[in-house]
Amino acid sequence: MFKIALAQINTTVGDFSGNGDLILDYLTRAKRAKAQLVVFPELAVCGYPPEDLLLKSHFIDNNLKLISSLAKRVYGIIAVVGFVDADSKGKIYNAAAIIEEGSIKTVYRKNELPNYGVFDEKRYFSQGNFETNNGLITVEGRKIGVSVCEDIWVDVSAHTKQAKGGAKVLINISSSPYEVDKLKKRQELLIRRAEETKTTIVYCNLVGGQDELVFDGASMVVNAQGRVLSRAKQFEEELLICDLDTTENPVAQVLEDSEEVYRALVIGTRDYVQKNGFSKVALGLSGGIDSALVAAIAVDALGTENVTAISMPSRFNAKATRQDARTIVKNLGIEFKEIPIKAIHNVYLKVLREYFKGLPPNIAEENIQARIRGDILMAFSNKFGWLVLTTGNKSEMAVGYCTLYGDMSGGFAPLKDIFKTKVYELARWRNSQAKGPLIPKSVFLRAPTAELKFNQTDEESLGAYEQLDKVLAAYVQGHQSISAIAKEPEQVSYVKKTINLIDKNEYKRRQAPPGIKITARAFGRDWRLPITNKYKE
Amino acid sequence: MFKIALAQINTTVGDFSGNGDLILDYLTRAKRAKAQLVVFPELAVCGYPPEDLLLKSHFIDNNLKLISSLAKRVYGIIAVVGFVDADSKGKIYNAAAIIEEGSIKTVYRKNELPNYGVFDEKRYFSQGNFETNNGLITVEGRKIGVSVCEDIWVDVSAHTKQAKGGAKVLINISSSPYEVDKLKKRQELLIRRAEETKTTIVYCNLVGGQDELVFDGASMVVNAQGRVLSRAKQFEEELLICDLDTTENPVAQVLEDSEEVYRALVIGTRDYVQKNGFSKVALGLSGGIDSALVAAIAVDALGTENVTAISMPSRFNAKATRQDARTIVKNLGIEFKEIPIKAIHNVYLKVLREYFKGLPPNIAEENIQARIRGDILMAFSNKFGWLVLTTGNKSEMAVGYCTLYGDMSGGFAPLKDIFKTKVYELARWRNSQAKGPLIPKSVFLRAPTAELKFNQTDEESLGAYEQLDKVLAAYVQGHQSISAIAKEPEQVSYVKKTINLIDKNEYKRRQAPPGIKITARAFGRDWRLPITNKYKE
Repeated sequence: MFKIALAQINTTVGDFSGNGDLILDYLTRAKRAKAQLVVFPELAVCGYPPEDLLLKSHFIDNNLKLISSLAKRVYGIIAVVGFVDADSKGKIYNAAAIIEEGSIKTVYRKNELPNYGVFDEKRYFSQGNFETNNGLITVEGRKIGVSVCEDIWVDVSAHTKQAKGGAKVLINISSSPYEVDKLKKRQELLIRRAEETKTTIVYCNLVGGQDELVFDGASMVVNAQGRVLSRAKQFEEELLICDLDTTENPVAQVLEDSEEVYRALVIGTRDYVQKNGFSKVALGLSGGIDSALVAAIAVDALGTENVTAISMPSRFNAKATRQDARTIVKNLGIEFKEIPIKAIHNVYLKVLREYFKGLPPNIAEENIQARIRGDILMAFSNKFGWLVLTTGNKSEMAVGYCTLYGDMSGGFAPLKDIFKTKVYELARWRNSQAKGPLIPKSVFLRAPTAELKFNQTDEESLGAYEQLDKVLAAYVQGHQSISAIAKEPEQVSYVKKTINLIDKNEYKRRQAPPGIKITARAFGRDWRLPITNKYKE
Repeated sequence: MFKIALAQINTTVGDFSGNGDLILDYLTRAKRAKAQLVVFPELAVCGYPPEDLLLKSHFIDNNLKLISSLAKRVYGIIAVVGFVDADSKGKIYNAAAIIEEGSIKTVYRKNELPNYGVFDEKRYFSQGNFETNNGLITVEGRKIGVSVCEDIWVDVSAHTKQAKGGAKVLINISSSPYEVDKLKKRQELLIRRAEETKTTIVYCNLVGGQDELVFDGASMVVNAQGRVLSRAKQFEEELLICDLDTTENPVAQVLEDSEEVYRALVIGTRDYVQKNGFSKVALGLSGGIDSALVAAIAVDALGTENVTAISMPSRFNAKATRQDARTIVKNLGIEFKEIPIKAIHNVYLKVLREYFKGLPPNIAEENIQARIRGDILMAFSNKFGWLVLTTGNKSEMAVGYCTLYGDMSGGFAPLKDIFKTKVYELARWRNSQAKGPLIPKSVFLRAPTAELKFNQTDEESLGAYEQLDKVLAAYVQGHQSISAIAKEPEQVSYVKKTINLIDKNEYKRRQAPPGIKITARAFGRDWRLPITNKYKE
């Protein structure tokens, strides 16, 4: 019997006291389960990613104090805990403390620092030196190597050296953000590494939301033959106990694609709202598919009693849309307010009439409607302390089919990284899970429209979403060129027009609320395009 | 006679055709001035910083094509031009092409890649290898070393090795962003390097604005005795011709502190507006000092005919403030509109009455006023194609004393990195330069107020600006701890309260428009704090 406990916990950035309590709680439970070793995620002590908090020396000190005081509480079990190490020259390291009998026995410092995508680790950390800190320990006669996250993604690094040094078990502590297909990639990698090094790999991942990132958990143990011995659930805290000497350990099932993304959105929304001290949210419910899905996510994240939907019809909103909004609200059982904006819109138009005299109505008048809605939602936010969820999706954010300070007003954007085609897919999946009716069929059937003028439809302006989303994925996620995207000559002008829209709407994205990353390239920390940009292929 | 031409040009990110023309123009002028060598700034070919455009392989290809075609045009002079080099494995380098007689003779690849502050160069570039590309060339019997920007800031790097290798002249091509006191630091560094290496240092810097950054130019030549042989103007394009063999070269005077900052704001605003395809701007003019200063900056950047000021008084605006707004407009000679917001505010209140029944008026009603103003400005923007300048300053942005989607609505924030105390200083300086009256004395004397309710003053809420700005500078620019900032025990609670405001308003900053960086740490790319953050010292 050799039991390892993988403490898949949901830490909070900067919450030393909360994270410390959480670590002690899981430590106690691991001991109670008679584990010889308990493993916590990367930077468990301070939360991940702490970003520029790492530039504050008092933050580093607080983290060092916590790891020291935690160490004093560890007896009868060995704990591997992620923290920020510091040397006498003030350099800091993304590190793992290996704690035994009341003291830190040794420290491993991450060798490979990711500095791409959402990661800026070279901004903060120095590289660990394997010669001086090799992460090798011996527990009950078994040689074990400890490494941190990125290390194991690199073909030759700490893990290969540890295996060469005789390690039979490789522990990797990680805070690996969720993306579609990431778990598959991660598991394939771990299987490959286990086979390459002929070791058992113990991989402990973080779980929970932090700003735009969601960590999906799914911590796992893979044996030297590449078999998954044990796996924790996705998107939930769990203390996974795996006895390396048996084949009877819990193996959570991997979620089906739509459910996986949906659950990422739910935990990402819940953690953003609650970790920021809110309990209730409001959203504008139009009767369209986007806001219907956001309402469902909000309910699943926070409970019906914590979600208020506000419908704000204008002169351009069809009766059918308004009716759908009421049906969705009834089906979800949430609070609902219907506040027509016509009166306010009229006063704006009256006040502006003399200045806009002789000019045809254009986007100016249209956007005022979206901005009135944003202002009303924010008034409720300011009055009742609710956080406003925006309902825009990634397709809109990409081409700027949204109003800055209008429907973009709000604290968090659950669908920010969800293409319109995926919105439908998720809504269908969510409907399939509901006990009764949820999002009415008419919402799926109606042509998407912003309803800011008469008979407007999205697809008239943007092309069919099926086609649009393909171009967006190739350009945004793939950084592909026009010639690579437009396979046929007749597609060139559409692709060019779309790319032009994406480029020129960078200024809107710069002022957009954060939202949950689920793709390889979201419009967040992993998208750093200049606004001032004259580049044309 | 050994004449070097320093082409201090204003490039635009991604504008290959424009940058190419600019380079050729300066090349021709340098030849006409009989220079033996002409030097262009870092990444002159693609503009700086290109950020994630560097992740697009077609962007790299376009840049390679341009440097090749430029090379074919270089005869009778040697040109040192910044571009992105690529190797056969797809790695890219921040590089300098040394071009002679129609071809690239050699390439130097930057050895030191900054990855702090606003810089993310390790995200994109591989490090140059000095052994294979040492940047040494010989021109008319003189050995010259070429390095790129950060290289020369590191004590031992390419420049020291080149000097050891016999170089008597060290060329450094740079794109060094402006900050207060940066020129002094830069010049001291260059003098030190010249003395250490016993070489003449030729430092060519970029000039102009790019999103949040302003490049100040002030290219210079320092001889081996540490004397500044020649220096270009700040904030202007210039072809500086320096004959290394004489002591009679142009040396531009360094601007006095206030003028320097003011000029940075003017060029930063002008370039943001114009490089993004706008010619006209609008701003909300309250009669307070911030909007008065922004109006003056806008006029100096774009001309009186391109600036429209809109005053949007509410029931809480004092007559005196409104009168001041009119005076400022008259003194500046700009277009003016006065649009009272009371009627619109009343309708909002009426519509919301039933929902807010029984609740005391609070920030909800106050913020609606700020949001109406934002909406009106955006309506003018949408109707006439004007870019909206916001007028908030860094003190407000720091503590969140501003309304999201209200006074924060707009495309560019000239004062984003200017503390309130500095706003007064700059306004005084600008007044001192005016031929007639500009900003009335009453604007300086009135207690700053948001005028969102009766008898509100900023300093009642925030403490005196003198005191506030000191805390902000220590916390934001210095990342200092409470104990380091609160020198006396009685200051602790004020400092804590202020820091708490800064931390909890991160969400507002995340949705703020870009603005010009003038300090060591602005609220831009150099400020990457999490929103979800429970850290308390």
